[in-house]
Amino acid sequence: MTGFDHLGFLGFDTFGTVVDWRSGVARSAAPFLDRHGIGVDPFAFADEWRALYQPAMEEVRSGRRPWVRLDVLNGENLRTVLARHGVAVDELPDRELADLNQAWERLDPWPDSVEGLTRLKRRFAIGPLSNGHLAGMMRLARFGGLPWDVIVGAEIARSYKPTPETYLRSAEAVGLPPERVGMVAAHNDDLKAARACGLRTVFVRRPHEHGPAQTTDLAPAERWDVVVDSLTEAANALGCP
Amino acid sequence: MTGFDHLGFLGFDTFGTVVDWRSGVARSAAPFLDRHGIGVDPFAFADEWRALYQPAMEEVRSGRRPWVRLDVLNGENLRTVLARHGVAVDELPDRELADLNQAWERLDPWPDSVEGLTRLKRRFAIGPLSNGHLAGMMRLARFGGLPWDVIVGAEIARSYKPTPETYLRSAEAVGLPPERVGMVAAHNDDLKAARACGLRTVFVRRPHEHGPAQTTDLAPAERWDVVVDSLTEAANALGCP
Repeated sequence: MTGFDHLGFLGFDTFGTVVDWRSGVARSAAPFLDRHGIGVDPFAFADEWRALYQPAMEEVRSGRRPWVRLDVLNGENLRTVLARHGVAVDELPDRELADLNQAWERLDPWPDSVEGLTRLKRRFAIGPLSNGHLAGMMRLARFGGLPWDVIVGAEIARSYKPTPETYLRSAEAVGLPPERVGMVAAHNDDLKAARACGLRTVFVRRPHEHGPAQTTDLAPAERWDVVVDSLTEAANALGCP
Repeated sequence: MTGFDHLGFLGFDTFGTVVDWRSGVARSAAPFLDRHGIGVDPFAFADEWRALYQPAMEEVRSGRRPWVRLDVLNGENLRTVLARHGVAVDELPDRELADLNQAWERLDPWPDSVEGLTRLKRRFAIGPLSNGHLAGMMRLARFGGLPWDVIVGAEIARSYKPTPETYLRSAEAVGLPPERVGMVAAHNDDLKAARACGLRTVFVRRPHEHGPAQTTDLAPAERWDVVVDSLTEAANALGCP
């Protein structure tokens, strides 16, 4: 396909775009909630936990808090959510909390992800350009068989998307100017910020990321360079048979 | 195999241990030397270029020079070597120098490397723990089909081996204490420094890294945890069928 010959790297939002975090977190949470008699639906629990994700990163983005990795933020947020449900968090073994926190590293890829990435990788270097930390992205890739060439994103940049630094330092790390990098995401805000930095944009519709009643990111908010329903379709659109 | 169950990550020295830099650099240099009438054997040219590698990194390790990536050091060293041979470096197109500098990203793996890494990857997370920069390691992996899970090493640590920081920050980046990381290298000095940081050690004999007359690193200088002749043998020794 013309128009993408100059691209050297595709960076992927990962939670929601490549993997199904909601089902995976619910799956890990279910036995924990049972064991502790916490009467909340595992999917609702996943949503509550995830709802604290942006505010926690905003503390870092705003400069109110120094750089800290996502596993630390997720761990703090887990304690907050559990406390809301009346759990005496400080009495739980650290090991059990740490294990549940690693739910974010045991998420299934969407059914098209591994095939799509494998095809895209034949033509482009690929890697997560995620807010996840390096070790978490590494273990997530091993869990789901995601064939990344490299891991960039928040930890490399020491900044959380959608700050310009996250995109620009990731591009620099893979040795390319922003216009030779494509951002692949299911989130309009992510693509908007990437485009403002000069990256090309690929929107992947993931209408069930937030469950059956999802209302956000159902459609492209701008004329993104590519709009598709899966990573295999992205491979088609980008000329990767 | 007992004794390695606790390992979570294997970090690999790359130039010399996984890929054959000398033949690869000579192969890229040969047409360049021909074209410019530079009367030096391509292998001798590779050796001369490589000889400037440690002194250039030492400027950074010592703190005399702020952190700078390996491609920048290699590029400066290339100009130095060419100038020694009477080449008017400033008259050469930047593009041509940049292309020759990327010889370090077009190096063949040793014949056992891809199979060995593929087997080791089934049990351990694997990645370069090299002085190479992230983009260079990424392109080298794509060139040779090296199935890394992640890229750590000098750029992640902003420090060059054998400083302790390079090993310790790489271990931290993959989320493991040093004793759960194994360092795989063909160089005794690298392993000595890794061991001092608490890493486990795997020595791979590469007796032709420096050509047929190699005199260094022909044998283990200490009792390393594992001593082998190839990465497939390393896979055997570490229980990866």
